[in-house]
Amino acid sequence: MHGLMMNQPLLISAQLEFAQRFHASVEVVTRTVEGPVVRTTWGTVATRVKKLANALTDAGLKPGDVVATLAWNTQRHLELYFAVSGLGAVLHTINPRLPPDQLSFIANHAGDTMLFFDTTFLPLARHLASVSTPIQHWVALTDEAYLPKDSGIPGLRAYETMIHGKADTFAWPALDENTASSLCYTSGTVGLPKGVLYSHRSTVLHSYAICMVDALAISAQDVTLPVVPMFHVNAWGVPYAAAMVGSKLVLPGPALDGNSLLELIEAEGVTSALGVPTVWLGLLTAAKAAGKKMSTLQKVTIGGSACPPSMITAFQEEHGARVLHAWGMTELSPLGTACVLLPKHRELNAEGKLHVQMKQGRPIFGVDLRLVDDTGSVVPHDGATSGHLQTKGSWVASGYFKSQDTSQHVDGWFFTGDIATIDPDGYMQITDRSKDVIKSGGEWVSSIDVEHAAMLHPAVSQAAAIGVPHERWVERPLLIVVKAKDIDVTKDQLREFLEHKLVKWWVPDAIEFVDALPIGPTGKVLKRQLRERFAGYKL
Amino acid sequence: MHGLMMNQPLLISAQLEFAQRFHASVEVVTRTVEGPVVRTTWGTVATRVKKLANALTDAGLKPGDVVATLAWNTQRHLELYFAVSGLGAVLHTINPRLPPDQLSFIANHAGDTMLFFDTTFLPLARHLASVSTPIQHWVALTDEAYLPKDSGIPGLRAYETMIHGKADTFAWPALDENTASSLCYTSGTVGLPKGVLYSHRSTVLHSYAICMVDALAISAQDVTLPVVPMFHVNAWGVPYAAAMVGSKLVLPGPALDGNSLLELIEAEGVTSALGVPTVWLGLLTAAKAAGKKMSTLQKVTIGGSACPPSMITAFQEEHGARVLHAWGMTELSPLGTACVLLPKHRELNAEGKLHVQMKQGRPIFGVDLRLVDDTGSVVPHDGATSGHLQTKGSWVASGYFKSQDTSQHVDGWFFTGDIATIDPDGYMQITDRSKDVIKSGGEWVSSIDVEHAAMLHPAVSQAAAIGVPHERWVERPLLIVVKAKDIDVTKDQLREFLEHKLVKWWVPDAIEFVDALPIGPTGKVLKRQLRERFAGYKL
Repeated sequence: MHGLMMNQPLLISAQLEFAQRFHASVEVVTRTVEGPVVRTTWGTVATRVKKLANALTDAGLKPGDVVATLAWNTQRHLELYFAVSGLGAVLHTINPRLPPDQLSFIANHAGDTMLFFDTTFLPLARHLASVSTPIQHWVALTDEAYLPKDSGIPGLRAYETMIHGKADTFAWPALDENTASSLCYTSGTVGLPKGVLYSHRSTVLHSYAICMVDALAISAQDVTLPVVPMFHVNAWGVPYAAAMVGSKLVLPGPALDGNSLLELIEAEGVTSALGVPTVWLGLLTAAKAAGKKMSTLQKVTIGGSACPPSMITAFQEEHGARVLHAWGMTELSPLGTACVLLPKHRELNAEGKLHVQMKQGRPIFGVDLRLVDDTGSVVPHDGATSGHLQTKGSWVASGYFKSQDTSQHVDGWFFTGDIATIDPDGYMQITDRSKDVIKSGGEWVSSIDVEHAAMLHPAVSQAAAIGVPHERWVERPLLIVVKAKDIDVTKDQLREFLEHKLVKWWVPDAIEFVDALPIGPTGKVLKRQLRERFAGYKL
Repeated sequence: MHGLMMNQPLLISAQLEFAQRFHASVEVVTRTVEGPVVRTTWGTVATRVKKLANALTDAGLKPGDVVATLAWNTQRHLELYFAVSGLGAVLHTINPRLPPDQLSFIANHAGDTMLFFDTTFLPLARHLASVSTPIQHWVALTDEAYLPKDSGIPGLRAYETMIHGKADTFAWPALDENTASSLCYTSGTVGLPKGVLYSHRSTVLHSYAICMVDALAISAQDVTLPVVPMFHVNAWGVPYAAAMVGSKLVLPGPALDGNSLLELIEAEGVTSALGVPTVWLGLLTAAKAAGKKMSTLQKVTIGGSACPPSMITAFQEEHGARVLHAWGMTELSPLGTACVLLPKHRELNAEGKLHVQMKQGRPIFGVDLRLVDDTGSVVPHDGATSGHLQTKGSWVASGYFKSQDTSQHVDGWFFTGDIATIDPDGYMQITDRSKDVIKSGGEWVSSIDVEHAAMLHPAVSQAAAIGVPHERWVERPLLIVVKAKDIDVTKDQLREFLEHKLVKWWVPDAIEFVDALPIGPTGKVLKRQLRERFAGYKL
């Protein structure tokens, strides 16, 4: 027997309509690619989305077609999010940091028929125009005045010209909620990128989830700054959630350096900001250099890589902003866990709280987690036993776009590729990536723990630990360090420091100083490159 | 083209499993019908739910069967919530405050085959056993020691005996998410009660919604006390949401008087409590009499009837607990709107904030609202124009159980029966029930506004305004007042007071003092009875 409730599909277009009906006056602010900060409202965004939907329809876009973007976090990108998916087409957000050959690979693999790009990415668009792809329509996300001349791209149009004069009403199709809505490729540090194809249902459920108090708590009461790019897992779902609850949205455009972010946070009264550790490192450094405390910031959500404890402390103690450590993946839309303290943690001292906050947090209802050992047997949630982290849920990928690869799916569970523990309260902590783990004498050394310990030293700006071959122990840790600008440290001093922070056999056998670490297209340290560079390293 | 996301139905059993896997140690505390306060955990509740599911299966319960309860907010009632719905059967929570003839009507109409009842309600169960119904299994929610002797009910069993020795594992069926999960009848102040049949999907979506920051914000960080009964619209969905996020749950059992609630709030460190105004009146009175400030309470959610401003002020100023005014209906699962202040309201003074808080609040994504006039034309959201409030959404009833009555549904919208305004920020304010509105000289007088003004007078404990016939103006307001115990007021004094609070033509033409107002089974004043009592009233 079925319930007698209204049959309403979960659709992205409904989020936009809701914003227009109930949050029309809430601001959407963008630092534009052209330079100035531009402010508008959700009401105006909704009107322009409808103009865009009419323009896309006039250009021949059909449900199921794939529209690509190479774009920063801006109002126009936001408009594409709602117009393309609302129509029943698929928004394919391309990561501009991918190497050119991967760009053309995914444009072909996805079957992109239109490309919208910020003028910053003109060279990448030119590259795509010079190779064979199905792209027929090329649109620069700007107006006539800024449209690149002699772009070399046939039929290039300006976004503002495209939507100019179009009707500002649009009747959204009543799609099946399982219709594909957007597409994001994993960065593919090994092998070719793989496409994750989200649906309207998974996107709306994920939106509800991230607005929950114990998740990311996206809210109308906040001024929200997604620094995490809209080309990377839909900026963690913030654009959809912000429309749904009517949060003021501040979009940083191309200016992701610390000073620009600092200025934007202060000027717009940002209360909640979301991004990866590398971005926050820049922001904290800029704030320190300027001697400024971020006065409005209340919450910083940190994901993408494990957050070093020194960063948590800096935000909380120097800026009075609570850190929310979270974990997710492209295949998880992305939210899997969020680290919120429980009532029982209120009595802990600062160190005790920090110990909890370093964990990636508890799963959000809608995703389930479990740990298995190398043989696939489930291991206990005792906070000590680590295992391969598996997940399943309403916003977890069931496979990859146009792929028969099912190697990461077993018995309905998805292998995350992470090694983790889960404690009896449900807090998950990643100890390593499966491929980064250092195997020493039959035991695992957590490269993440070694790095975090090193970053507690004031002279260490960044750190990466990798395993290098060892005759007796198979592998031993090598620590690679980028020093802070203003303080020095010797290898011996750092080694002694680490001896006080780590169990003896986790202390690296060697330390090397480098000028920079190789960073991948989603802001993560590319350990594979480090392992290649230090392949012949003699301990 | 469909997205490539895992196909996971939204099921109530998944909420329970999640609680067992990730929130097992979080407390569930009940003031029992037997007397003592009993404490257990979500882990133990989950284990007992599985024993109950096995017991129900052994008793022959099949998917689609209907199981009735006549029960307070207790752990055992909570276990029935998850076991019955999890099995694919329908939990029919009967409001014990309904008159006996309506009880037997709905037991027959619903097709209840089992009845679980608290011993408090033995007389009602006896009544049901004395008339013809499909009920075959009778279970008292207690153990052998407290099982009523000579109950007169054939085959009466004790709940604890029923689940004793059953296996504590159970494989939940993979139901279609649209499967009916629970059934609640409206109180039927006019005509027979009508059944609202919820589904797993609507229940889980509603659970996500109420956990959002801008909604009821149910959270693991709170100790949550649902005073709103589990026999009335599933205690506003709190049991499901609490399982989902792992909130400590405090269940007040039968003791809903002010002193008992006060004691429970202090003893259990309740931070968030939810209920109707009549219950809070008792609590505030008890706290005042005892000279106690509720030290742990941070948030009081008030719904069911419009909340008088004096109550908002009392909670906020005397107890430091923020009031969250909310609006819903049985047909809305029940949440429709919640009144959270926006950043722009932070600059308002106390009076300005109170003015916003008296509104029922903004819709939660998943329900849409609109206003229409008597001809069905949509009227603007300008905060001034009132109209008939209509709604539609993911957790809104599409009809009534075993009913052809579609009179409340037009063009996919449900007529709430409320008269309301909506302002440009989306804040909805109910000015009246359609049937309670006072029509004076072609204009509407808001009976709610008149009542709230009266309740600002310290000598007024409760107030109800109704329309009585008038030769010239068709109707004029009559104010009916229950005086506070310790302060007196004359009709003339009260009238003069109201002249300062209301526009002239809203001031009641007459005032009558009574000992008590008639209260219906869901805590609302029965104005129909007042209109009957004062039918021949001469102004």
